[in-house]
Amino acid sequence: MPCGFWGKILEVDLKAGTLKDIVISKDDYRKYLGGSGLAAKMLYGELDTDVDPLDERNPVAIMAGLLTGTIAPASSRHVMCARSPLTGIWDESAAGGYWGAMFRRTGYDGIIIRNKSEKPVYLWITDEKSELRDASHLWGKDTYESDEVLRTETENKAKTACIGPAGEKMVRFASVTHEGNESHSAGRGGIGAIWGSKNLKAIVVFGKKKIEIYNREKMTSDIKSDAEQIKELSVGMTAFGTAGGVVGVESWGDLPIKNWQLGSFAEGAQKITGQTTLTPEMYLDKHHTCHACPIRCGKSVKIDEGPYAGLRSNKPEYETLAGFGSNCMNDNWEVIAVANDKCNRYGIDTISTSGCVAFAMECYEHGIITDDDTLGLPMEWGSADAIIGMVDLIAERKGIGDLLAEGSARAAEELGGLAPEFVVDSKGMELACHDPRAFTSMAVNYATAVRGGCHLEALTYFYGRGKHLDDLRYLNEPRYNHGYEGSARLCYDFQNYMGIFNPLGLCKFLFPAEVGPKMISRWISNITGWDMDMDELMTTAERIFNLKRMYNFKLGISRKDDTLSPRILAEPRPDGWARGVVPYLGKMLSEYYQLRGWTKLGVPTVETLDKLGLS
Amino acid sequence: MPCGFWGKILEVDLKAGTLKDIVISKDDYRKYLGGSGLAAKMLYGELDTDVDPLDERNPVAIMAGLLTGTIAPASSRHVMCARSPLTGIWDESAAGGYWGAMFRRTGYDGIIIRNKSEKPVYLWITDEKSELRDASHLWGKDTYESDEVLRTETENKAKTACIGPAGEKMVRFASVTHEGNESHSAGRGGIGAIWGSKNLKAIVVFGKKKIEIYNREKMTSDIKSDAEQIKELSVGMTAFGTAGGVVGVESWGDLPIKNWQLGSFAEGAQKITGQTTLTPEMYLDKHHTCHACPIRCGKSVKIDEGPYAGLRSNKPEYETLAGFGSNCMNDNWEVIAVANDKCNRYGIDTISTSGCVAFAMECYEHGIITDDDTLGLPMEWGSADAIIGMVDLIAERKGIGDLLAEGSARAAEELGGLAPEFVVDSKGMELACHDPRAFTSMAVNYATAVRGGCHLEALTYFYGRGKHLDDLRYLNEPRYNHGYEGSARLCYDFQNYMGIFNPLGLCKFLFPAEVGPKMISRWISNITGWDMDMDELMTTAERIFNLKRMYNFKLGISRKDDTLSPRILAEPRPDGWARGVVPYLGKMLSEYYQLRGWTKLGVPTVETLDKLGLS
Repeated sequence: MPCGFWGKILEVDLKAGTLKDIVISKDDYRKYLGGSGLAAKMLYGELDTDVDPLDERNPVAIMAGLLTGTIAPASSRHVMCARSPLTGIWDESAAGGYWGAMFRRTGYDGIIIRNKSEKPVYLWITDEKSELRDASHLWGKDTYESDEVLRTETENKAKTACIGPAGEKMVRFASVTHEGNESHSAGRGGIGAIWGSKNLKAIVVFGKKKIEIYNREKMTSDIKSDAEQIKELSVGMTAFGTAGGVVGVESWGDLPIKNWQLGSFAEGAQKITGQTTLTPEMYLDKHHTCHACPIRCGKSVKIDEGPYAGLRSNKPEYETLAGFGSNCMNDNWEVIAVANDKCNRYGIDTISTSGCVAFAMECYEHGIITDDDTLGLPMEWGSADAIIGMVDLIAERKGIGDLLAEGSARAAEELGGLAPEFVVDSKGMELACHDPRAFTSMAVNYATAVRGGCHLEALTYFYGRGKHLDDLRYLNEPRYNHGYEGSARLCYDFQNYMGIFNPLGLCKFLFPAEVGPKMISRWISNITGWDMDMDELMTTAERIFNLKRMYNFKLGISRKDDTLSPRILAEPRPDGWARGVVPYLGKMLSEYYQLRGWTKLGVPTVETLDKLGLS
Repeated sequence: MPCGFWGKILEVDLKAGTLKDIVISKDDYRKYLGGSGLAAKMLYGELDTDVDPLDERNPVAIMAGLLTGTIAPASSRHVMCARSPLTGIWDESAAGGYWGAMFRRTGYDGIIIRNKSEKPVYLWITDEKSELRDASHLWGKDTYESDEVLRTETENKAKTACIGPAGEKMVRFASVTHEGNESHSAGRGGIGAIWGSKNLKAIVVFGKKKIEIYNREKMTSDIKSDAEQIKELSVGMTAFGTAGGVVGVESWGDLPIKNWQLGSFAEGAQKITGQTTLTPEMYLDKHHTCHACPIRCGKSVKIDEGPYAGLRSNKPEYETLAGFGSNCMNDNWEVIAVANDKCNRYGIDTISTSGCVAFAMECYEHGIITDDDTLGLPMEWGSADAIIGMVDLIAERKGIGDLLAEGSARAAEELGGLAPEFVVDSKGMELACHDPRAFTSMAVNYATAVRGGCHLEALTYFYGRGKHLDDLRYLNEPRYNHGYEGSARLCYDFQNYMGIFNPLGLCKFLFPAEVGPKMISRWISNITGWDMDMDELMTTAERIFNLKRMYNFKLGISRKDDTLSPRILAEPRPDGWARGVVPYLGKMLSEYYQLRGWTKLGVPTVETLDKLGLS
């Protein structure tokens, strides 16, 4: 085996109660790297389209990336992959912190979970042995409590990944929360619901093995200077994390406001942004970080006074600030922090949850949902009670929350009338909080992103605002906003580039620090001993993207599904920088398919698959 | 009662076997004119959204227009209105010939049919009495045969409207054929299936009453000069009817080719166009016309030699030439004529039928439909056997024809896979054969047309190619093709203007002869004695359009439904004049809603309804 990986996956059959090792060929590593790339390879081959995502036969793969837990900068991440209960298509959901690095030290590159246990269990993995243990006493407990009990029962330094009550109740966007109150979440697409459907409460890892590095000396020397650049270009991220972006994003017309209806939230943005809230005088408790990260964007927060006094939690990220803030017409940061904390405890995705809350508020305004449905909660725009209370209802599947727990698209179909007009999603996944009317390349991305309404598959709104490394400029010309020319190309390049992070286990915040594919291919070569250049890396990225598209194609996805909600396509913002814009999606899409080497129906051609070695 | 109308509607209860007269107030006539306007008023009030279109409780209204059967030019038409079995929303389907004028002479302005007869019946209406008669001996007979039997049983000069086997079998786009072999069809939306569901085979009319005209002298004098203009500007239409348009339409990139995939059909267009085929040396048998028409576009055709020798039929119209011709890659006019004749005999809409055949051909090419499904018919592009044979299968609901008889949208959903990519429709109605990628105003129209994929609600592709009357220029600036600026306005103006023809019973081919709302309002005033000016007429048009939108809104229609197929939105033509164009629909739609005074969700505001007297 080349350096950098172990070459084995732990396969767990929850029904039989058996654990065994699967060996991965080194060819597969080079072709798919690891993480979601390798998972796509494994899951594509065995995909049974007749198996419902919440059927026990739907496998879930929990994968370290190729570089996870190494000395590569920001190499903290692992990823969970399965057919999503929310969208019915490919899902991958990554998390940072220390769980991935610790898991790597057990000697595995991944886990594949099959079938359903009769009783609640957790999986305990060390570098010496792995076993399933009873988790009946944890069922019903939230993720913070579970983390404490699990570490008490195993090893205090162990790292936990566990579901909360929302996963147990199979909320379709239930997440997996890592390390308790530190709350690194594998958030999107409902992997937590799959765990729940399998009676899997937690995976706890503890290991001491060391990952071999091919050329440690060169790698150490390289990252010394690389980390300098990263630190230098991450000053804002280091100070406030993603929370520092609210004001800028608002000024570009990129921030969703009132369920994506309005164009400006200026004062409100000031009130909730990190610059205002994340200081020691306000709510900042302490900084924290993930494995091997020079950026250090993590912040713990505390509320000492007022109705929410006593809260100790991880900070709400940008998406959460926008989702429970502006998109619900709420400018009270404390309310967002409480909703965020609840989501982490229950184990539900803050983006989909806040999207469902904003959706419910608009339904309520139009009389589609009434006080009877909300069990008395007044779902008025900006209401603290509504926001916090609806998180409870969804996670506990009470009242209308039981329907919203199916996702806003399913809920709207059930509610009928005008309700479908208020859904802002792609392929059933609520859009992340970056507006494709502000950055039209994001329209192409949301329409074609492999897991649905996912911003992380492109992140093009980050692009073009600073000096850039040569290899990033190679990817494309500087960013495009409201026009459509060049947007398809920008999206194509960035989906490919962003597609290498989850296979490698790297954090995508390296990109705003101007880390490009050239630097990353150098890290890979240093660690594995491969001679992987930027071109091979980008071809690999394209291979993985196309494989996941084929996975979705098997599930019926084609051009007809590559679209966006009517609110985005036909309702321009009334004011602000993006005023009057709607994306010219069809035009960009037809260009995009050509760039991808797909048919005009959005299906990879045989030639394209051949070229990528996927035939 | 003012002149020009009788003020009563015949209400027929097929279950009870009773007939009675309903009196219409003169205020309603002024507010809704007649025809589909008055029908919308009646049917909106009693719409029960829980009643399926093929449930016996779905009423159908068969209405003369306000001017039908008068001396007004081209005042031949009547219209049938109901909730459509094809789309589930508002349907109105008009026909010319002499049926409407003859019906008017019985002393009625319309018929409303309710419930279902136990046995097949036909309705016999004269100016002296009306009755239901047994039609068991006609069930299974085609429309030509039925016409002959019915006239023998009643009165040779009576005019018949009847369904064929397709209506009896409730093909969802079954039509009502008038006057046998003359084949004036109320084609779109499946009114024939509703007749079938009610066991109503035919309505036969014969009357001698004369419609009173307020100022016959002025009307006679006016139309003398008006008819001159109409004749002068209709030379092409008089010579070849709509069949003369194929070559021009092809040159603009407006002709659908190979299920809307290609951009050019030049040689083929020459072969099937009227100029080539409708001469005495070729297939022209004789000219014919409708009531009071100076245009005289009707042609009978005959085939004397070859495999189809013996055919005597009405000519295929433009839509049929395009549908069974270029859109199926067929340039053999005789094949189109045979398919057309079959559609008229079976009683099925040629636009939806040919759309289903092209759809089936593309499914066959992709292996989604096989020879087992087609009972051995090779559904290859351009195949004569395929085209003619599939008309039989659909009308008789045999093999895959049974599924296609549900419409291409429903069929695609059932077939799954890529099939939905091959549907080209709006709201479940197959698009008429004018391409919204060539005339982008037609994109807004198809997306918002009240009955779905209907070209007749806008006809904007006719606009701006000749000198125009002042009042037509008042409507809008000259036409827009591939851009989007001005397209929403053009569509809005023309939907309003085109919306007065079915309420009045006038033929829309008056419009290419540059008859505008000013001239028409003069005719109305001459005939009724009202002082109706152009502005009142256009406000009335807008009132009727909004009432029908509200009918659809009750049925769940809003912005989310105002869209087009992915082939139209994201697949540009590869060559020809419209090469590279896809409509910027969302942009145009948001402008259109503003012009309409609708919310951004596509719903008329209370202010708009107030303004139009519809509160």
